[in-house]
Amino acid sequence: MDVTPEQAKAGMDLWMGWAQHGVGGRRGHLAEGPPALPLSGRVIDRSPGVRHHPGDVARVAELGVFDVLHSLRAIREFEPDPIPDDAIATILEAGTRAPSPQNSQPWAFIVVRDPATRAQIAEIYRRVWNLVKEPVYGDIDAIEDRSQRRLLQATDRLAAAVDEAPLFIFAMLDRSKLGVMVTPDLQTLLEPSSAYGAVWAAIENMLLAARALEVGAITTNLTRLMDTEVRQILGYPEHVETVSMLALGRPRAPARFGPTTRRPVGEVGHSERWGRPI
Amino acid sequence: MDVTPEQAKAGMDLWMGWAQHGVGGRRGHLAEGPPALPLSGRVIDRSPGVRHHPGDVARVAELGVFDVLHSLRAIREFEPDPIPDDAIATILEAGTRAPSPQNSQPWAFIVVRDPATRAQIAEIYRRVWNLVKEPVYGDIDAIEDRSQRRLLQATDRLAAAVDEAPLFIFAMLDRSKLGVMVTPDLQTLLEPSSAYGAVWAAIENMLLAARALEVGAITTNLTRLMDTEVRQILGYPEHVETVSMLALGRPRAPARFGPTTRRPVGEVGHSERWGRPI
Repeated sequence: MDVTPEQAKAGMDLWMGWAQHGVGGRRGHLAEGPPALPLSGRVIDRSPGVRHHPGDVARVAELGVFDVLHSLRAIREFEPDPIPDDAIATILEAGTRAPSPQNSQPWAFIVVRDPATRAQIAEIYRRVWNLVKEPVYGDIDAIEDRSQRRLLQATDRLAAAVDEAPLFIFAMLDRSKLGVMVTPDLQTLLEPSSAYGAVWAAIENMLLAARALEVGAITTNLTRLMDTEVRQILGYPEHVETVSMLALGRPRAPARFGPTTRRPVGEVGHSERWGRPI
Repeated sequence: MDVTPEQAKAGMDLWMGWAQHGVGGRRGHLAEGPPALPLSGRVIDRSPGVRHHPGDVARVAELGVFDVLHSLRAIREFEPDPIPDDAIATILEAGTRAPSPQNSQPWAFIVVRDPATRAQIAEIYRRVWNLVKEPVYGDIDAIEDRSQRRLLQATDRLAAAVDEAPLFIFAMLDRSKLGVMVTPDLQTLLEPSSAYGAVWAAIENMLLAARALEVGAITTNLTRLMDTEVRQILGYPEHVETVSMLALGRPRAPARFGPTTRRPVGEVGHSERWGRPI
């Protein structure tokens, strides 16, 4: 995915347009929480001879790592504008920077932009979601816990229109990369958690990179149920499996990045032994 | 883990000391790759009334997210100085920001600083590594592939002295948090990859936050073999299991952060269908 100067220019203009005219402006994304922090933005110096990290092309300004970590929300509603190729390359590149057991890098990624393919896959996703929805969650509109109810309703809306996202990235586990960590027939993982974990670390890196580029994303978790059918569409071999399908796009208001709600460290952290407060 | 102004001051002095006198200085960490990028540092404004993200206390300067993503290396050799409490809190806090299926947040963390406990656990780790080393890898000094050989030799050295790291963080899966995604007896995960994946996303966030604070870390992958014994030491209940033990500390030279070697996007990425170049 080489980028010509013209493409880079076009990509940059697009990003600058988003930055200037996006939902609430760049500063607006943290508006619900503490006063917005000054973003650690910087304009990339493109003078001849100046070298950058791979993927720098798309970066007009760079957010601080904690700004990104603390404002990464799942985005489930997307604007239809395509994500520029250089942004996609930057996101995938971030994925490849993840750690993996013995640096095996057991991941692979399939980028799906084609509307017809997205529609086919969306149809499968919708069918699988509708299959599990009631048996697993019952009547989601009747769930008492408000945040759980809203989350499942949002998932339901996502399933109805996931291909509104202009970009899918399939994050896959490629068992042929696992060396001694898989049986020679590539069927049995010796350390399943670490193998899948490497792909999930790559996914987290991609979510963070996407958020830094103002691209929203949601990871989907029904991929095991979809795998047989999706495999026929995307043509991946037997030793490869989908770990998660990511749907990506520019957040459509009211969806936006911002502070997230999590159980505090005091609840999930323990000091020296289980149960001792931190 | 509340932080008094005195602790915050002490922590800040320590970080500033590291920044000024650390291995090669802050700019030195990228020295092996392209010319060092200007770090997007900023000094936190601590005037009364100014609010920050949780964990801001330890942040003297904030690295850009891509600087961090692209310079995160596994660190296996550590200086013995303790990691300040506010840095630990910042790292754990970053972990809690990870996404998880239905926002279940199925993680828990045990922080181990006590030297006696670290020594006990290191002894178990060493024993397990020595148990698997030869059957799985053969004579590691005879491995032909240079980077594989060096990686395994580094793992061997780590196993010999893992408790030189002043801090362990056990990243755990707490199955009681999984709601409908686990059977009622908490024994069988309905979506193992997503459940472990949430913990691995939290681990990746912690690695990135640690790196931003100049704290190095390595994730270990033999935890399934260690779990029974470690459980007795750390006292965690049956529905909780260790996903990875992280060893953390300030990198000891020649270990340092910097560019990483990965298969390029062109090799692991596919466009629209498996096998089509990106």
